[in-house]
Amino acid sequence: MRLVSYVSPEGPRAAIVRDGEIVDLHQNEPALPTDLGAVLAMGEDAWSFLRRVEDQGKALGETVRLTAPIPKPRKVICVGLNYADHAAETGATPPPEPVIFNKFPTTIIGPEEAIHLPSDSREVDYEAELVVVIGRSGRRIPEQEAMNYVAGYMCGNDVSARDWQLKKPGGQWLLGKSFDTFAPTGPHLVTKDEIENPHDLGIRLILNGNVMQDSRTSQFIFSIPRLIAYVSRVCTLEPGDLIFTGTPGGVGFTRNPPVFLRAGDVVEVEIEGIGKLSNPVVASRLADA
Amino acid sequence: MRLVSYVSPEGPRAAIVRDGEIVDLHQNEPALPTDLGAVLAMGEDAWSFLRRVEDQGKALGETVRLTAPIPKPRKVICVGLNYADHAAETGATPPPEPVIFNKFPTTIIGPEEAIHLPSDSREVDYEAELVVVIGRSGRRIPEQEAMNYVAGYMCGNDVSARDWQLKKPGGQWLLGKSFDTFAPTGPHLVTKDEIENPHDLGIRLILNGNVMQDSRTSQFIFSIPRLIAYVSRVCTLEPGDLIFTGTPGGVGFTRNPPVFLRAGDVVEVEIEGIGKLSNPVVASRLADA
Repeated sequence: MRLVSYVSPEGPRAAIVRDGEIVDLHQNEPALPTDLGAVLAMGEDAWSFLRRVEDQGKALGETVRLTAPIPKPRKVICVGLNYADHAAETGATPPPEPVIFNKFPTTIIGPEEAIHLPSDSREVDYEAELVVVIGRSGRRIPEQEAMNYVAGYMCGNDVSARDWQLKKPGGQWLLGKSFDTFAPTGPHLVTKDEIENPHDLGIRLILNGNVMQDSRTSQFIFSIPRLIAYVSRVCTLEPGDLIFTGTPGGVGFTRNPPVFLRAGDVVEVEIEGIGKLSNPVVASRLADA
Repeated sequence: MRLVSYVSPEGPRAAIVRDGEIVDLHQNEPALPTDLGAVLAMGEDAWSFLRRVEDQGKALGETVRLTAPIPKPRKVICVGLNYADHAAETGATPPPEPVIFNKFPTTIIGPEEAIHLPSDSREVDYEAELVVVIGRSGRRIPEQEAMNYVAGYMCGNDVSARDWQLKKPGGQWLLGKSFDTFAPTGPHLVTKDEIENPHDLGIRLILNGNVMQDSRTSQFIFSIPRLIAYVSRVCTLEPGDLIFTGTPGGVGFTRNPPVFLRAGDVVEVEIEGIGKLSNPVVASRLADA
């Protein structure tokens, strides 16, 4: 099942994509909320309704614009250095435990929405990532049960201002990762049952038609269950929380010469079986404060 | 005005404290939401209703338990090294720009709620902090307008597992700061108009009756307007977002010998004009995964 959120005058609305058509959840089944995060929070109860909408729901008559499948996650959890090929090319030894950081939820945008280059960064970079969407609340989740907590997957781009991420006092990556628009996600949330093995998917980043990252999730240092078990040692995971699972080799700032995003660029993240997420890059309309 | 959230069978409910009595907002004025964050999101529109509840509202007949004034903030933004005396005790030179990190929103608890010591940390520390509550949405807020974006203040405790904060690969503080229950806040959200000068308030941390931190917010390296301007260069601040403004000297891990929290402790944060936040410390009931 491919779940999406689309733009309506009343805000984002959850829907299913069926044969390329958009089928609104709440319109067809009032028991389902309009917010996709709230649909996930219903847990197992949502599934019979979702299947009925998929089977019998009436598609929208008009064309709509998609937005981020989960427009307002409470947590956007990220993993640093999680691909073996990336570790090898940078000469870094794989970390003994996952390196966890996060992005503010205000970073989230959807497909075709613009990444805004802030006026006070000169080093904005891309990172193609498989995003895991949490479907069920849990703390201290055992690794062998962790997949029961996964709702599905999306393409994601962990856009990063390297000058803010790496060159500010205190060494915290948060701000460099958290400029508004720095977390494109989508276009679809592909439910877990559609993906036979999330640990063997091709993943690519394409910048203006040129392939910049090209790897497979089989290169993961820490598997999805391992990441869920690790993070949930610390905090309760909640439905709609996102885990960006790390990026493969080929990011812009390690290249010689470095490649950074420029206004007019188009960045695409393509993941086998999940889809292709495309975003234009524009200069921020906000002047320096 | 002193705003609170109290525990009800339907979840947290927003109220005013008037002469020690609790006056429910929504019960007295149905235009006001039950969630205090949603009340703040109404902006100026909320104020005439709030004043009417304060003047004419009927107090609750029964005794209730308070919870965190803002139970589900979207951002819990924190500032490292913002007191001249704390920078000195850690041996750090005051940073040229604010050091910004954050806690997951799942850390939030209220007054008298228990701080749970995780079974896999041995170095859980306290940090008394003045918490600024954002009342209005904004990006790239100029310093001279920043106070217009403040709704009010709370006491806060930035509880920190030092072994996770400082000894994990990648150097990111997020996980060490983000165990569930690691952000006690309250008991009241004191509206801005009640505090003449937030930059000259006494702040103390009291552990089992012993004063461990005792300073004034006049020791701030970066003022509240400066912090709001700085963070909003990066992200949109939203109503209900919290800014923990940093902790003064006297934290446990810099002491000789170090002091860490133990089951049975009681930790209090007292801020002049704001109130006193008290939390018991218990061992987590969750076993190792």
